[in-house]
Amino acid sequence: MDQNKANGQEALEQVIAGIRPLDSAAVEAAARHLDQLTKPPGSLGRLEHVAKQLAGIHGEALPELGRKAVIVMAGDHGVCEEGISAFPAEVTPQMVMNFLHGGAAVNVLARQAGADVVCVDIGVNAELSHPDLRSRKIRRGTANMAKGPAMSRREAEAAVRVGIETVEELAAAGYRLFATGEMGIGNTTASSALLAVLGGADVASAAGRGTGIDDARLAHKQAVIRRSIEINRPDPADPMDVLTKVGGLEIAGLVGVILGAARCRCPVVIDGFISSAAALVATRLAPEAASYIIASHLSQEQGHERLLNEIGLVPMLRMDMRLGEGTGAVLAFSLVEASVRIMKEMATFADAGVSKSEEKKEGAGA
Amino acid sequence: MDQNKANGQEALEQVIAGIRPLDSAAVEAAARHLDQLTKPPGSLGRLEHVAKQLAGIHGEALPELGRKAVIVMAGDHGVCEEGISAFPAEVTPQMVMNFLHGGAAVNVLARQAGADVVCVDIGVNAELSHPDLRSRKIRRGTANMAKGPAMSRREAEAAVRVGIETVEELAAAGYRLFATGEMGIGNTTASSALLAVLGGADVASAAGRGTGIDDARLAHKQAVIRRSIEINRPDPADPMDVLTKVGGLEIAGLVGVILGAARCRCPVVIDGFISSAAALVATRLAPEAASYIIASHLSQEQGHERLLNEIGLVPMLRMDMRLGEGTGAVLAFSLVEASVRIMKEMATFADAGVSKSEEKKEGAGA
Repeated sequence: MDQNKANGQEALEQVIAGIRPLDSAAVEAAARHLDQLTKPPGSLGRLEHVAKQLAGIHGEALPELGRKAVIVMAGDHGVCEEGISAFPAEVTPQMVMNFLHGGAAVNVLARQAGADVVCVDIGVNAELSHPDLRSRKIRRGTANMAKGPAMSRREAEAAVRVGIETVEELAAAGYRLFATGEMGIGNTTASSALLAVLGGADVASAAGRGTGIDDARLAHKQAVIRRSIEINRPDPADPMDVLTKVGGLEIAGLVGVILGAARCRCPVVIDGFISSAAALVATRLAPEAASYIIASHLSQEQGHERLLNEIGLVPMLRMDMRLGEGTGAVLAFSLVEASVRIMKEMATFADAGVSKSEEKKEGAGA
Repeated sequence: MDQNKANGQEALEQVIAGIRPLDSAAVEAAARHLDQLTKPPGSLGRLEHVAKQLAGIHGEALPELGRKAVIVMAGDHGVCEEGISAFPAEVTPQMVMNFLHGGAAVNVLARQAGADVVCVDIGVNAELSHPDLRSRKIRRGTANMAKGPAMSRREAEAAVRVGIETVEELAAAGYRLFATGEMGIGNTTASSALLAVLGGADVASAAGRGTGIDDARLAHKQAVIRRSIEINRPDPADPMDVLTKVGGLEIAGLVGVILGAARCRCPVVIDGFISSAAALVATRLAPEAASYIIASHLSQEQGHERLLNEIGLVPMLRMDMRLGEGTGAVLAFSLVEASVRIMKEMATFADAGVSKSEEKKEGAGA
């Protein structure tokens, strides 16, 4: 075995082994606190669920969120030469520059949320330069997966490591809440292939309209995905093999972001279809990582609900969005913040002199 | 006809007649602007829908939201003597004081959203006093609707006027975005009765667990609702008759808030089951009012989805919440604000030098 590959695998295995279960004592302390607050038990629904999850992640009932960042991984897809997207591949580098100039939807929503946009060129098929761009290019776009593997296993592992290292650096700088974002024309095609192989979904239900294609191009896209799977024969029992053969560089980077966040004991809010495909790979590599993930929204992309179900995640927002970039995840930051504020600021029944539920007093539960 | 009643009806009819359709030119201008922004057409889903709605309400493509308030109407329900709630009726005045001291969930979420909590005693069955409380009590709680009408038609109309006047006063003080909130032990019972009568839903599907009752009490609650409808025989074609006989004072107040907001050309974000019951009454009185309503969340209360469908509204959040107070509506303020920011801050394709969709160029649409 080649030495670099061995090192890469060791490092990844260490990260995976370092992902620990949530702190159950902190989860229980948070649950007890929530039941003292002036509201019917459980009546804040998902806000209470997130509050308990954050407690378990941080190991204390009333955690501080710290700085927030959405990590936008950008990469190109060789499969675009098959004509599967509504947009030309040149849009990937154009949109990266738009992120860096602050004009994209994710920038607007991140400003509102008080979060930073961290943009990583992990595989854009163009030379890009900007002081705020993190240049960690593994290669200039993937190869066309309809003709062979999208990348080598070593490249896929290196891309995952970029994601892990990005989170580690940000965590060292005080960031404690992450969101996943991406840019890569053609990446719903790769994500659909990941869902089809890892989730056992048929391609017709796994592949949707992406940024907006018509019926004819959708049928063509589905045929290209089928061909990519037939030619590459990815092994569903080996998530890294699937990622290598029918994934993408930015998707691999997000796999690393999710694993890195879980290893650093930080919550990670995932965005839509592509981010969820990365989450599926990450949780197949490290099932415990699912405990660190917060699902933000159900996108309009066909297949997203199936993808979230595969991981066991329930989204909070239904906005019919299908933009990516991390937009839905950043929109959900305010919901995560709300769950923390509820824990810290609400009065208890005793403080406020409010009577508790009669059902509760009778022991009938709520 | 008694003179006061005649005056009341005239005033309400004037308000209803004053509710105008949205400004279609402003809606179209907003739609054109959205399609120039650097994203696939329509890809921001509900955010784009809300942006166009706000444009139509304010009559300009890029409106200012102004100050934000959640109006929390509080009232008691005589039907509580039938034992239909998990909480004792004394919780209504206790929670009003909690709102005024800033310790309830709605206060926490309103602070996060930069919104003010405006608390109105429209029918609490207790003497309450606080400098920030708006005391507009119509009567000390409704009568027990299982034995006769909840209130008189004159009282119901007066309660609606309280809501209208509250919005008018706040609009005069610069508030431009409203949310509906309520507190009233027993008010899911009244709201279920409104849904059953006005929506033609059977009581078994219209009535749920409220703040958390067990199976036996749920069956009893449904029997009480059936009896209330049988005894009072409200006329489904006369929304004010239904509100009078099986409604509530705080629900009537929220009917006024929604009508008042529509008349003042301000958007109103509705909360969960009780707010939606008020919205159903308001839109039966004034169908055009629906154009001014933004649905925030789908609550866990059985019957809420049916209620929203009756009005033709689609919620943005699925948080499994069932608290009321306006909590879900205030949580959605950040989504409304996001739609405004998208319109104002995103770069256009031309600004950012980003290529447009090929499907769009080919005229195939997205």
